[in-house]
Order: sequence, then C-alpha cells, then structure tokens
Amino acid sequence: MSTFVIVGGDAAGMSAASKAKRDDPSLDVIVFEKGEWVSYGACGLPYYIKGEIQSLSDLVSVTPEEFREERDIDLRTGHEVVSIDPDGRTVTAENEDGEVVQPYAHLLIATGAAATAPPIEGTDLEGVYTLGSMTDGRDLREFVNRSRSEGTFMQPDSGPACEFLEDCTAPVGIVGGGYIGIEMAEALAENDFEVHLFQRSERVLKPFSEATSEIVAEHLRERDVLIHLESEVEAVAGDSRAEVLVTADEEVPVGMVLLGTGVRPRTALAEEAGVELGKTGAIATDEYRETNRSQIYAAGDCAETEHVVTGEPAYVPLALTANRHGRAIGQTVAGDPTEGGPIVGTAALKAFEMEAARTGLVGDEAAGEAGFEPVTETIEARSRAGYYPEGGTVTVTLTADQSSKRLLGASLVSEYGEGAVHRSHAVVAALYEGATISDVEGYDLAYAPPFNTTWDPVLTAAKVMSGRL
Amino acid sequence: MSTFVIVGGDAAGMSAASKAKRDDPSLDVIVFEKGEWVSYGACGLPYYIKGEIQSLSDLVSVTPEEFREERDIDLRTGHEVVSIDPDGRTVTAENEDGEVVQPYAHLLIATGAAATAPPIEGTDLEGVYTLGSMTDGRDLREFVNRSRSEGTFMQPDSGPACEFLEDCTAPVGIVGGGYIGIEMAEALAENDFEVHLFQRSERVLKPFSEATSEIVAEHLRERDVLIHLESEVEAVAGDSRAEVLVTADEEVPVGMVLLGTGVRPRTALAEEAGVELGKTGAIATDEYRETNRSQIYAAGDCAETEHVVTGEPAYVPLALTANRHGRAIGQTVAGDPTEGGPIVGTAALKAFEMEAARTGLVGDEAAGEAGFEPVTETIEARSRAGYYPEGGTVTVTLTADQSSKRLLGASLVSEYGEGAVHRSHAVVAALYEGATISDVEGYDLAYAPPFNTTWDPVLTAAKVMSGRL
Repeated sequence: MSTFVIVGGDAAGMSAASKAKRDDPSLDVIVFEKGEWVSYGACGLPYYIKGEIQSLSDLVSVTPEEFREERDIDLRTGHEVVSIDPDGRTVTAENEDGEVVQPYAHLLIATGAAATAPPIEGTDLEGVYTLGSMTDGRDLREFVNRSRSEGTFMQPDSGPACEFLEDCTAPVGIVGGGYIGIEMAEALAENDFEVHLFQRSERVLKPFSEATSEIVAEHLRERDVLIHLESEVEAVAGDSRAEVLVTADEEVPVGMVLLGTGVRPRTALAEEAGVELGKTGAIATDEYRETNRSQIYAAGDCAETEHVVTGEPAYVPLALTANRHGRAIGQTVAGDPTEGGPIVGTAALKAFEMEAARTGLVGDEAAGEAGFEPVTETIEARSRAGYYPEGGTVTVTLTADQSSKRLLGASLVSEYGEGAVHRSHAVVAALYEGATISDVEGYDLAYAPPFNTTWDPVLTAAKVMSGRL
Repeated sequence: MSTFVIVGGDAAGMSAASKAKRDDPSLDVIVFEKGEWVSYGACGLPYYIKGEIQSLSDLVSVTPEEFREERDIDLRTGHEVVSIDPDGRTVTAENEDGEVVQPYAHLLIATGAAATAPPIEGTDLEGVYTLGSMTDGRDLREFVNRSRSEGTFMQPDSGPACEFLEDCTAPVGIVGGGYIGIEMAEALAENDFEVHLFQRSERVLKPFSEATSEIVAEHLRERDVLIHLESEVEAVAGDSRAEVLVTADEEVPVGMVLLGTGVRPRTALAEEAGVELGKTGAIATDEYRETNRSQIYAAGDCAETEHVVTGEPAYVPLALTANRHGRAIGQTVAGDPTEGGPIVGTAALKAFEMEAARTGLVGDEAAGEAGFEPVTETIEARSRAGYYPEGGTVTVTLTADQSSKRLLGASLVSEYGEGAVHRSHAVVAALYEGATISDVEGYDLAYAPPFNTTWDPVLTAAKVMSGRL
C-alpha cells in the first residue's frame, strides 16, 4: 500500500485527499492538520461576522467525521507537522500526546497563508484583529456581539443599543482597502459600527481598475464608511488595548482595529526541507504542482502558479486554484498525471449593494510592467434594456495590447445582482484562449431585455476599445 | 456623392445607416421604411403588453426625428419598396403620394421577418393575434386593457374585475411554446388571464435542453399556465371571432388566440430581383453580408449567416446579429470592408421568475445531425455558496463531441437573478474559440460566496463532462 501524506487540511489538502482516495481506494491517505477545522470556506467569514450566517460550522463543507468515515481518509486534526525529511521520505508531526514519524510515498504541502500584520508598533495590543482563520472569525463575531449588547463603538445615531455615549465616539479602524478590508467594512457597518478604513495608496482595491475603485469607494461612503486614502497607519497606540490609530496626518481614536493588510505564504516547513521558493516568495512548482523535490507537491495559498497572460509565475492565493490544484495532485498521485493549470488572477467582491470582478492584467501600469503596449478603456452601460424596469449600470474597464490587439484583462462593477461578476466569466474564457479585442467584439452573447442591452456591456467595451486600437 | 439605399428601418437597417453616415458623412443615406416605426426593440413588446413598460414609444431607441436631424439620414417612413432593379441600380418605392425611383450605389435589404400563422383554418378570425410588429403589440395591449376593464377572459378567482362569469370561463390560448409563446404566457397570466399554452411537440423551448424545458414548464405550471404538450392545434373555430381551439384530442373554449408559431424571412422583394436564397430559405450572403448581386447586401431577420460550431449556414433571427451585421455593412459601405461575423445561436429568455439561455448545439440530436459524436450532461448546482443567504439552483446542460472533446453547446436555467444567462457568456466565448471541455474546466472563473460556489456551476458541468469523455 502506497502512502500519500498531506500537510494542511483546508481546500487544497482535502481536495487532494478526497480525489486521490476516490480514484485509488488502495492508497493510504493521511492528513495532518494543526487545528481543529478542516475544509472550511474562509471566504464566508465576513458574512458570519456580519451575522448573515448563523454558525461557524455552516462554513464547513465536509466535516472531519465525513472525511474519516465516508471517505476513508486518515485525518489527524491537532497534529502539527514540524519537519520533513525528503531523503528518508518521512514527516514528523507533533500533537498533545507527543511526536509521530510518518513515512510517505507522496507528500503534499498545503500549509496555506497567514494574515500579515504591518511592521508597526502596537499590533499586539488587545483589540487588534486579523481575519485569517476560523478562530479569528469566531473572535471577531464575539467582538461584534459583545459590542452590540454593550452598545460600544457604535455610530452616534445607532439608537438604543448605544448606551454609553463616550464609547460611541470610538469607531472601529480597518487597515487596508483590499478584499478583506472592504468585506469587513460591510460586515461592521451593517452592525452599526462607525467604520474608518485606512488605505495607504490613493485608492482602494488596487488590483481593480481605477473606475471600479472609485465606484466602490463612493458606495462605501454612501454607506457611512469613512475612507482615509493615502493614509499609512504608522502605529496602533494604547496602554493594553488599541485606543488610537496613528498616521502621518492624524490620530483617530478607535476601540478596535482590523488588519486587512494581506497574507504571506507559509513556507518555513518547505524551506527547511530544501523545497525551493519561486520569485514571488511562494513555493515554486511545475505544471503538475510538484516541487524541486521529487514526490513533494505544493498547492493552495502556500504555492505560486503561472499566469496565463504573462506566462510568468504569479502568487494569487484564492480558493478555486487551491481546490483545482489539490484535485489535480490527488489525481496524479492516484496514477493519472494531471496538470493543475495556470490562472488569470480572477477575483470577485461584494461591497454592500455593489459587486465587482477583475481578471488578467488590469490597467496600463500592470500591463506595461509585463511588457505589453497597453491601452485601457472604461465604458458605462445599462445592465438591462433601457426601457426595462429597474436595472442599473455596469462599468467595464478593458486593458488590451496595442500591437497584438490581444485582450489582457478586465475590471467590472455594477449594483449587486446586475451581473458584473458573472459577466467577467466571458473575459476569463477570452483570456485563456488568447482572444483579440475584435474576437471578443464578435461574440454572440445572450441578449434579452431583462438581462442586458442588445450589445451586452462587455461587447460595448470591446467595440469602444476596437476603435482605439 | 455616393448613395446608400436601405430597405427597412429596424435594427439592421438603422445600424447600417448610422454607421455608414458617421464613418463617411459625404454618403447620401436613404432609408425606406414601410411603416411608421423605426429602430424599435421588438424584444420589449411582451413587457409592454404585460404593462411593465408604459408607452410603445419607450421601445424606440432613436426617433425618426433624431435620425433625420441629428444623424442626417434621409429616413422616409410610409414608403414601401416594391421592386429592385439590380442592373439599373435603382429601387422603386410607393407611398401615399405615388411612386419614386431611387438610384443607389449600395443597397441593403433589411426587410426582416414576418410572424407566421400555421396552415390551419380560422387564423383570420377576429381575436387571433400574432406578435411581430409594433402594431401587433399595440393591438395586444389594447386587448389586455379592454379585457381587464370588462373583466373578460380572466381566471375564475381573479376577483372583482371578473364581472361576467360566463366570459370568465373562456381562457386565452397561446399556440407555440417558444420564446414568444412563453413571454406572452407570462404577460397574460400576470394580468390575471387564464392561459392555455399549446405545444405541438413533447416539450416547450425545443432549442434548449430537455432539463431546461422541464424546469421552465414546471415553473409555468406553478404560475397557473395550463400547458398542453404534444397537442397540435388543428383549427381555430368560431363564427366571426375565435371561440374554440381544436386539437386532435380536445376542444378548448377560448376568447383570444395568440399565434407564437415562429417567423419566416421576408424574401420576396430580394427573390424578384434575382437575389439568391440559401438552404435555410433566408437570403444567402458572404462574410461581408453581400448577396450574389454586387453591392446588394442583406442583414437582419431576412438573411442567413454562418454557425461557428457547424460551419454551415444558419437562420437564427435575433437582435444582436441584426445590429452587428448592419453596422458591419455600414462600415464596409463607408469604405472600410468589415466582416459581419458568424453566430453560435445564443438566446436568452425570462419566464416569470426563471431565466434561461442556450447557445451552440444543444443536445445529442442537434449535435448528431451536425455530424458530431455527441455527449450531453446535465448538472444542478447552487447559484451561491451553500452557506450564503438566499440563492437558488443553476442547472447546466453541456453538449460536447466525444472524439475531439470539443464543447459544442450549452443550455442553462436558474431563478431570475441567479445568473443562468450571464453565465452562458463564458460558454459563448469558449464556442467561438473552439475550446475543449478540459479547456473550459480550467477557466479561472470569478468566485466569491455571494455569487457562486468555489467551482462555478459552469466549471462543475465541465468537470462532470470531462469524466464522461
């Protein structure tokens, strides 16, 4: 019997475990997971904190018991792998009872990423949070519930819940205007907190187009989120707990701080075993997601992959890639070598009542850095026929290459439900296929008045871009 | 000055006129339109009849005055072109004042399609309608308004509006379960009519997958539409007005009949001028939409085009193709030869609170007839993350070719707003690019819990199909 050992029990790890065992039931599949939670939807944490999802366990797609009993996977939670011996082909794991040394034939490193704190003082104070794990999610939900019942940190006009007027003037501060920052701004503002969002650069959502950033920021402001742009937080000040956010320009009293300043891949275990990192700082792999060490694979938020448009390594830690690469590795280990394909860096976001998506290389700066001769165009179009009731506006930014006329990327934004995100799917397909702008302009996209104008906004954007190329 | 003459003032004709004049203002652009309406959104008529759009003129995107004054187009409404002399390069048009003979350098035939009546008795009776024109739309809205105020043809339980109990038992009958039939079923049922829908074959929406047909039919039934399948209407009976719909099996008393039995291209004028039709019965054109007669173009619902997947001529009269081909012809006539590209036969439909789209070759029968070795798979998936509030089900049918592994077509259905239609966009792009199922499976589609599961339903469908190929 061949043994497949997996380090880390979230998306990549459990996808690999499940697929390997299903395709080759004779495999011995062992998963070491440091914590208690496996296979959970971390993307759902902001909605749990917001209160739209009642139980943390709702985020778990398959329980440990189901993995063990129904899928016959030897899942060992509470086991931290502390070293890998690639020559002897063993891993050493620690749990509360001691240490186990486990031989492997195939190994998957799926250690994920850790939420990072910026290198400033005060991030260890009480009341400073990150959102990187289920435990973080539970802590934040408890903070929300406690504050609501005590009436602290609320907006001044939030009514009877706000009992202690002095505390009501202390808002919550979010550091970072990326996905987590914005999703948490929604989660907290919808719970009547006064939310201050600090963004180091001149706009939120840097991976999206400027138009998308502006539309989302404007909507956040309409929802009473106070956005501080070009405002780098230099310290969190306070005695034992966070009391003030300090920037170059101002000191904002806060009762709580959420750090949404990105993640870094957990690579220490791999590095100590001689597994090479790529130029992005995440674990380098080939197209089968195998590392430089034979039979050691890496996938998920600890690993880099290739970008379809640039052909270069990229580090874009997202759930779908983790799932897909984990699954491909499982299939490979079960005897059917399967590539875990490249990415185009697609992401979607809901912000209150707006939705946005981005894919590929967005904007002249990103595309220029990758060696293209970029042209970027933004159009606004109705989301449904002009005469059809309701509907809204879809704003589409396309970036293309002047010399090859190739589509390079897109950023879309609309009211929630008006289809910016699902419309990005066509652009993703076009990017994978290396389509030109005139190819995209010619797509026979579905039309009916309740769904779009005769030329869907994506086609209108391609038509306008076509005139520029 | 060169003269560009256009026969027909709807989507193809006015797109060509506008583009030609914009690109070459020295062109003399003359449009002959038989009726009074130009550039209208016929796709919106069911929503006007339903009462969601207040005025027929709301469906007009550009008014005759705007075409004349702002776009400098010589638009002549009330002018019917009765003959074309391709050798002398003139057209003859009649209006109430007599006849004009107009020379042309370039000619576009954009005569559209006519709603057809089945070859049965009684379709000329009063109370029998088609929906092919703005006039038809006005007549149907008047019927709805009159009936509502008189309380006739209503459902027995529709309350005080139903004054005349005898009349209340006479429902409305729709012949044909295609787009028009189903959109009109919604429009009439939402106005409290008792609606009977007669479909000759064993399911509604034949161009969609069986799964889509079944889901839409079930939803129609939930909304109290009475569907008669395998029920060919053999006659409309009545003295002066429609009173009974007669099929082989039953006689259903009706107070009104709507014929939604398809359209045929208006080709008589072209045929008389020696313009050749294609094997579909619509006007044949090359890739520039030029007919066999030099400088005579044809576009819109009177012309055929090529299908990307089959490479064969196809007749799929839809708004986007008309717009696109008209525009390409305008550009060509203005001196920049531009192809009016092929289609994949995409269509979208709203039916009460469901939405559906289809594209390419759907189902084993259609794909088999086109010479492929078809495999068809249907999957059901959540439209949003399982733990995310609300959401619904997206049902995706894919058809692929066993030997080449190529994607051939798709049919999708979901609750309205849950994204079946916009999700079809990715499939359209894939079809144009000749993508295989494994290409599609690898697309990095946008994911976040408010929009889909980690694997979007389209990816799940590709994954399942992949296992079959």
